[in-house]
Amino acid sequence: MIHLSLIGIGTGNPEHVTLAAVRALNEADLILLPRKGEANSDLVDLRRLLCRNLLEASSRTRVVEFDLPRREAGTDYLAAVDDWHGAIAAVWGELMATHLPQGGRVGLLIWGDPSLYDSSLRIAGRLGARTGGEVAVDVVPGITSLQVLTAAHRIPLNALAEPVQITTGRRLRERGWPSDAASVAVMLDSGGAFQALPPEGLHIWWGAYLGMDKQHLIDGPLAEVAATILERRAALRERHGWIMDIYLLRKISGGECNEEG
Amino acid sequence: MIHLSLIGIGTGNPEHVTLAAVRALNEADLILLPRKGEANSDLVDLRRLLCRNLLEASSRTRVVEFDLPRREAGTDYLAAVDDWHGAIAAVWGELMATHLPQGGRVGLLIWGDPSLYDSSLRIAGRLGARTGGEVAVDVVPGITSLQVLTAAHRIPLNALAEPVQITTGRRLRERGWPSDAASVAVMLDSGGAFQALPPEGLHIWWGAYLGMDKQHLIDGPLAEVAATILERRAALRERHGWIMDIYLLRKISGGECNEEG
Ligand SMILES: C[S@@+](CC[C@H](N)C(=O)[O-])C[C@H]1O[C@@H](n2cnc3c(N)ncnc32)[C@H](O)[C@@H]1O
Ligand SMILES: C[S@@+](CC[C@H](N)C(=O)[O-])C[C@H]1O[C@@H](n2cnc3c(N)ncnc32)[C@H](O)[C@@H]1O
Repeated sequence: MIHLSLIGIGTGNPEHVTLAAVRALNEADLILLPRKGEANSDLVDLRRLLCRNLLEASSRTRVVEFDLPRREAGTDYLAAVDDWHGAIAAVWGELMATHLPQGGRVGLLIWGDPSLYDSSLRIAGRLGARTGGEVAVDVVPGITSLQVLTAAHRIPLNALAEPVQITTGRRLRERGWPSDAASVAVMLDSGGAFQALPPEGLHIWWGAYLGMDKQHLIDGPLAEVAATILERRAALRERHGWIMDIYLLRKISGGECNEEG
Repeated sequence: MIHLSLIGIGTGNPEHVTLAAVRALNEADLILLPRKGEANSDLVDLRRLLCRNLLEASSRTRVVEFDLPRREAGTDYLAAVDDWHGAIAAVWGELMATHLPQGGRVGLLIWGDPSLYDSSLRIAGRLGARTGGEVAVDVVPGITSLQVLTAAHRIPLNALAEPVQITTGRRLRERGWPSDAASVAVMLDSGGAFQALPPEGLHIWWGAYLGMDKQHLIDGPLAEVAATILERRAALRERHGWIMDIYLLRKISGGECNEEG
């Protein structure tokens, strides 16, 4: 029997791992470490660094790197994602069968928290059928990029007693401001989805490479800083070869700005 | 000059603190530990336990407990909260002046993450004016109750590529299902706000005392488990003298249930 731990590791700052994550790493027999074959090898490097620094000398954990299958570009987004998840589950299953033929504990280091715009839980759900045997899954929570954003800007996520919507760049572009939220956090934006909104009365807190040495922050009234963010984003992406960014937008009425910011 | 760290500590599991939180605790000259004079002394106990277990022998951190001012019941909710925040800022300011007359590093242990339905950042924003001197604030992110909920149930927060709304029980009662979200997380519910919704097509994942030994989980179609949750909640509250719970609701269409759950 296989026991699979999905271990949240934060989003760049190696000190954002929890004691529970350190324990889960050390208790694993096998850690599977995906190589993404992309420019942002920083994401792989953080995982390697955590294994190197956090695995105790006495631990018998084996770390095995593997190439993550690529997602086929398809016209049907959901179908393409579905195929891709199947391919990843197949690779995980093979690696577990090869390295743990008698079963054991497997750990996967998940960027941020496994609950937030991450497919590992969905992929793990397909393993049982693949491996034939039973696969027990558990989740170790991790600090999300959204929490690193609010911490870095020293702001609350929600306005006092008000709701927050977490959404994607794509959705913001398609539907505009969600009707029932004073604050909107945007992830997975390929760039500038906030341009779809009338900027008046909105404040933005933006962050890129959060938790890393190259972290960048910008905030201000959207009308004033939108152009700066777009330029900075393009320049940083050019310089580093990749970018990950996230932002929080909030409706600001009159004097509220000072209290919230 | 005072340096104030708001240190997220998770919501009950002492292993949910991060390495950054452990470092911040040890680097503080003074930790202010509020006593709430309430039935749920478990919340104070966790903070005491973390100080006891995580402060290294070599650390010179002093831990000072104090009584948190109570919120006056007022007809105007926002005005009452505002007064209360002012009273807390005054107490923090006095304690800092008493124990760190020359300035230094102060740590506050914040339940969960300081960004999520927590007022510490707003209160800290009032300190500068009170203490006369400068107060530099930083935030150490922590695991939220929402992440412990999704980890315990082994579910993603969002449906694939879909938005999530985080809201309060009060707001759910007043406004019903937010129009633009497939998933809704509800916090600060004094009990059963989900009864305001037509339960058809909704799945609920509920959790109380998350991260603690007395953690309780229930999930299922809302129509089937709503009554059980209400009964269990009342019984647990009776037994322990207090309760904190949180839940995620998701619209389930046809076969999706299996994939998400
Ligand atoms: C596939 S999602 C994974 C999110 C992750 N599970 C988490 O908990 O943050 C990737 C998106 O998260 C955000 N993100 C992740 N890490 C980030 C970082 N270090 N800095 C800025 N944004 C980040 C970006 O919006 C990115 O498009
Ligand atoms: C004032 S808010 C603080 C939230 C906290 N900052 C966090 O990050 O989770 C308190 C609400 O959080 C939720 N909560 C906090 N700790 C919890 C726990 N251990 N179990 C269940 N719910 C919890 C409940 O909905 C509660 O009403």
